Amino acid sequence: METKPEIHYGLEGVYIAESGISKVDGTLGRLYYRGYSIDTLAQNSSFEEVCYLLLYGKLPTEDQLNDLDKKLKKERAISEDTKGLIEGFADKLSPLDLLRTAVSAAAEDDSKPYSDNEAENVEKAIRIIAKMPTVSAAIWRLRNKKDPIEPDSNLGHSENFLYMLSGEKPNAEKAKFMDVMFIIHAEHSSNASTFATLVACSTLADIYSAVTAGVSTLKGPLHGGADEAAIKMMRDIGDPKNTESYINEALAGKKRIMGFGHRVYKTYDPRARILKAYLERAKDSADEDVRKLIEISLIAEKLMIERLGESHGIWPNVDFFAGPLYLWAGVQTEVFDIIFASSRSLGWCTHIIEYWRNNKLFRPLEVYTGELDLEYVPIERRS
Amino acid sequence: METKPEIHYGLEGVYIAESGISKVDGTLGRLYYRGYSIDTLAQNSSFEEVCYLLLYGKLPTEDQLNDLDKKLKKERAISEDTKGLIEGFADKLSPLDLLRTAVSAAAEDDSKPYSDNEAENVEKAIRIIAKMPTVSAAIWRLRNKKDPIEPDSNLGHSENFLYMLSGEKPNAEKAKFMDVMFIIHAEHSSNASTFATLVACSTLADIYSAVTAGVSTLKGPLHGGADEAAIKMMRDIGDPKNTESYINEALAGKKRIMGFGHRVYKTYDPRARILKAYLERAKDSADEDVRKLIEISLIAEKLMIERLGESHGIWPNVDFFAGPLYLWAGVQTEVFDIIFASSRSLGWCTHIIEYWRNNKLFRPLEVYTGELDLEYVPIERRS
Repeated sequence: METKPEIHYGLEGVYIAESGISKVDGTLGRLYYRGYSIDTLAQNSSFEEVCYLLLYGKLPTEDQLNDLDKKLKKERAISEDTKGLIEGFADKLSPLDLLRTAVSAAAEDDSKPYSDNEAENVEKAIRIIAKMPTVSAAIWRLRNKKDPIEPDSNLGHSENFLYMLSGEKPNAEKAKFMDVMFIIHAEHSSNASTFATLVACSTLADIYSAVTAGVSTLKGPLHGGADEAAIKMMRDIGDPKNTESYINEALAGKKRIMGFGHRVYKTYDPRARILKAYLERAKDSADEDVRKLIEISLIAEKLMIERLGESHGIWPNVDFFAGPLYLWAGVQTEVFDIIFASSRSLGWCTHIIEYWRNNKLFRPLEVYTGELDLEYVPIERRS
Repeated sequence: METKPEIHYGLEGVYIAESGISKVDGTLGRLYYRGYSIDTLAQNSSFEEVCYLLLYGKLPTEDQLNDLDKKLKKERAISEDTKGLIEGFADKLSPLDLLRTAVSAAAEDDSKPYSDNEAENVEKAIRIIAKMPTVSAAIWRLRNKKDPIEPDSNLGHSENFLYMLSGEKPNAEKAKFMDVMFIIHAEHSSNASTFATLVACSTLADIYSAVTAGVSTLKGPLHGGADEAAIKMMRDIGDPKNTESYINEALAGKKRIMGFGHRVYKTYDPRARILKAYLERAKDSADEDVRKLIEISLIAEKLMIERLGESHGIWPNVDFFAGPLYLWAGVQTEVFDIIFASSRSLGWCTHIIEYWRNNKLFRPLEVYTGELDLEYVPIERRS
């Protein structure tokens, strides 16, 4: 008799590859991209520089950064086909459904979508990363019956994204915040969406197919959408003074509080810590509505840490503080997921390119629990 | 010092779940769906019956089969949006890119794409499975500047697919062959594309997102496309009498012969055996061109088994014989991949629905090989 093999549900604790891209230290609450701590990068770097760092493995010289910046700017515009696709389905699909569909169709840009030449794949990645914010902004605008805004090549990647949403150039504080968002969301090792891109690319599917698999995977509430859910909760709380009773009731009813707890971080998520510092600053310039949400988030954070932090290893994650800050920067909730995807497209592409260096098709096994050699009973004798 | 953890490259030999759907016995060369051998089903069953068997777990009664058949027929038609999307990108995307994009956009059919109610998800699955052949046939026709053909509800699922390709009702022999193709490709446990659907659905993404991830993963030549590559090889060989020298040269040059060898089957693929029997029959009614390909495939199979079968565990797989038979049935090579996806959508949906019963987010780990705590050198001091 066979012994039943061990089943690795969710692949928890299973290592699938070596990677030099990022290190998530869930115990110490640290995150590194190519050896640099996320705090260092959020403080000193730009998204364009992080893009270079992740794709090429090291920080750029001035010439290298300028060169990448030019390429990204040149590739921002999206085709009329893409705009028409988004417009046609704008009322019928959610923003993330639209992004998934548009990314899938973006393979049209490329007469040879798969290449075994790494330098060519980096160029493809740059095209995708450059276009994602333009697609995302067009999705939001077309869903809201506004014409898309052409990218402005005087503006940086994240600043231009804010501009394409509203048509107004953001102030330096909001532009820097948005850049930090793009930086801290760019990469997080082999989480579900990145892993899906690896499964897809392991068949030697092209980079568009693999990124489409990534966007597909982001759709679920166990991966994406926690920032939006946290905002919904904060709005339900409504007033800062209701926060404690809401949290008490939720915990008593064993209701999940979105934005707390993480599969890997068993301590404070280092990205949440970066955002918390922005929250304190944003409070002063926020309007009444957003200021309340910020206050609620700060009270809820304190209470949750007291009750579940050290005792249960449940701490705020990056999604908890993201929502109030996005709203402060003028980004509406229905854009949250597609910004995340726009930023994470950098991590997806970097992983795909790395995985192809030592490609191995993913083909796990299942333990079959059914029967064997059943007799086929003719239909008239079945019941 | 930490010991380096074991890395499961490609997740080879790693079990990810229990499943009652299918059993692939790579040693004995057997395949079972819900306990019935693939030979039994190919001989006695219809695609509609296999659809019931996989989705509901048992063979249907006459009433149950009629009910499912009605639903499938009712859901075959595709929206004007979908047709417009395919037409707009017909010249710009490959057939599989078009299918991936159209499936992604098909979420428009559903105001509530994710459901935690299994019966609702089965209904969603039926809608997707019903539409995939219609989308696929429209892709082929629009790429070839022909108007799509509306489905005919007097015809069975696979027969109707052949009809929508050519506009002609196939004879009984070809209709039965196409039905067998739909049956034998419907499901194959957790291979790469099915696994990608599971990774996507494990975030509680909806069934459209998960199926899109499946189509995305099918794009790569290590998963899909081997049937097309095998036909290309047979055409390169050109004449049956050149087969032996071609094979000898290819083996001497260590060139991979497409359609042989399989990650799981280390003996004759049971699906290939079913197709081989059809090949013998098709030879007589095939035209000159296809008859040559059939002869080449039979000679190549014999030679390859002699040289690599018992000695290397490399045997014909399902893709080797599929191509000549598709051509015999009037299906062109650029349709091969999208037929496969149309058939496999049944397996994908069945797996998604099963996985949600005991859902666990996929989040494997990577061994980080980079550095830590690098100092951020200002850009002007970098070289």
